[in-house]
Amino acid sequence: MTNVELSERLRDGLAPGQRTDVLLAHELTREPMARVERTLLDLPDLQPAALRQAVINVVSAGGKRIRPVISLLIAGMLGRLDDPRMIDLASAVEMLHTATLVHDDLIDGSLMRRGTQTLNATWTPAATVLTGDYLFAYAANLAARTNSTRVMSIFADTLSVIVAGELQQQFTDFALRVTRDDYYRRIYSKTASMFVLACTAAGVLCEVTEAEYNALYDYGRDLGTAFQVMDDVLDFTGDAHNVGKPVGADLRHGLITLPVICYVERYGRDGIECALRGECDPQTYDRIIARIRESDAIACALHEAEGIADNARAALAIFPANPYRQALLDLVDYTLRRTR
Amino acid sequence: MTNVELSERLRDGLAPGQRTDVLLAHELTREPMARVERTLLDLPDLQPAALRQAVINVVSAGGKRIRPVISLLIAGMLGRLDDPRMIDLASAVEMLHTATLVHDDLIDGSLMRRGTQTLNATWTPAATVLTGDYLFAYAANLAARTNSTRVMSIFADTLSVIVAGELQQQFTDFALRVTRDDYYRRIYSKTASMFVLACTAAGVLCEVTEAEYNALYDYGRDLGTAFQVMDDVLDFTGDAHNVGKPVGADLRHGLITLPVICYVERYGRDGIECALRGECDPQTYDRIIARIRESDAIACALHEAEGIADNARAALAIFPANPYRQALLDLVDYTLRRTR
Repeated sequence: MTNVELSERLRDGLAPGQRTDVLLAHELTREPMARVERTLLDLPDLQPAALRQAVINVVSAGGKRIRPVISLLIAGMLGRLDDPRMIDLASAVEMLHTATLVHDDLIDGSLMRRGTQTLNATWTPAATVLTGDYLFAYAANLAARTNSTRVMSIFADTLSVIVAGELQQQFTDFALRVTRDDYYRRIYSKTASMFVLACTAAGVLCEVTEAEYNALYDYGRDLGTAFQVMDDVLDFTGDAHNVGKPVGADLRHGLITLPVICYVERYGRDGIECALRGECDPQTYDRIIARIRESDAIACALHEAEGIADNARAALAIFPANPYRQALLDLVDYTLRRTR
Repeated sequence: MTNVELSERLRDGLAPGQRTDVLLAHELTREPMARVERTLLDLPDLQPAALRQAVINVVSAGGKRIRPVISLLIAGMLGRLDDPRMIDLASAVEMLHTATLVHDDLIDGSLMRRGTQTLNATWTPAATVLTGDYLFAYAANLAARTNSTRVMSIFADTLSVIVAGELQQQFTDFALRVTRDDYYRRIYSKTASMFVLACTAAGVLCEVTEAEYNALYDYGRDLGTAFQVMDDVLDFTGDAHNVGKPVGADLRHGLITLPVICYVERYGRDGIECALRGECDPQTYDRIIARIRESDAIACALHEAEGIADNARAALAIFPANPYRQALLDLVDYTLRRTR
């Protein structure tokens, strides 16, 4: 059995009862998510019309909308889904995520995202920087509408963590830092912190206890971490067409992820040294990526993702068992099973 | 008398009683401004040390610090200077201003600002974008510390106005839009909006009445507008060494400012058409800039700045006469008299 088959089996081989996927989440949040979508497109102060339309295209290009759905499900689990501030919060979370993507694509020089061209592919860097800033401002605006200074502090802190993490990455030779600690620190800052925001800010608006707040923090951190680990596994095992980028793209960009760390732990650096330094020629990259993809480093990383996912599920135990909690549990399964 | 002499006389020819300059403002805010400076440099979450130092250099490069001084003077005028939230607010205002400058320099490709190299001159665009984002996040963080959702809303709205204005500029052929309306709309978004923020947010924390809020709004808008008009006049009349950029730099970059608008109103577009389109050769620019500099367009723009400054002074009439109010009045004089 190849590793690609292994990861497919792990993803698809769940019992039928577990295969609700994100359907329940989507069903439970359909109406409020429609309001979130409308809020996301209600951009203030933007003329001329061509500019407005271009920014609307960026926002409506979509993506999984998993972060606002999480905020809404938590509100539902805690019986507060009818609080209109939840729409502002969920919209603010997605808007902040979109803003970071716009700057990320500029920084990485990415030309495609979510199957469509990035702003960066067609606009000047100046317009791209400003569009990201504009979306940051709108995210802050939406967060302010919740009328909660604690929510606004969490927002500002999250943005600090994300940006400081990325900035540090610009100043650090990550290709030479092949450690789990470093990896998990990086993906907390890059991905899990935004899931934590979606969870804890919803909790604050629902006036949770400190124990509940901590549980929401843990759920967000572990779900976000598992989500990113699976992203990094899919970078090796995924169908290039589904994932929307070439196999092993991260490593080709000098980004060391968990499968590589697992590989080095098992087999050392011999034969992949140039990849760890980010300086192989294309054929060598092909060979190294194939070697990692076919090794048990993939199973190692998947196993780790499952352990983290178990922790995410466990964190929800203190909350009342209801369909919203079930949907949050299903999201954990979805995270492990997704193919893109 | 040349126009350079005229503008110098206007700036220097005030009665001795009016020549307090910004000394009173500095004296009255010395202690709280020292706390603001410490707050500005207390950057969270930033490693490694070299990166931290580089960002500290950007923040401490200084500039006039006029915006936080205004917030503090308003607090003093209203008897609330001992409220510790004023330090957070003043710091947040300056940090937001600094963040916009970092992105502006990247967008304009500026290599020097405030007599020192910009980040953009020595760093990669990626690091510059992220440093600006990081300072935005810190500004939001500081604003959140005021614990006022209204202050945070004003912050978010101001950032929206500034960025939307700049973004629109990227999509509009400004060189062909030579109107006062357009000019004043642009400088409101670019400069006056941040002065309005410094004034109104301080007012909110001082729990002003609606009439007082409106007066603070007017003072901020008119002071900021006069400040920018003088900047645009200095671009023509200033000593290149003092101003820190070549004479007529704005026009050379295709930016149409009030002296140009005054010139066109008086003498039409003949002979300066290529400058309005942003496509003269360097010698022609030299000739056109000298012609505007020596024309009565300068006196026209200065006269307009004085009218706006009068409105700024008048707006303060409803507040108690005390040394803080006097310092705010002096700042208006300083704005007209400054040579850089």
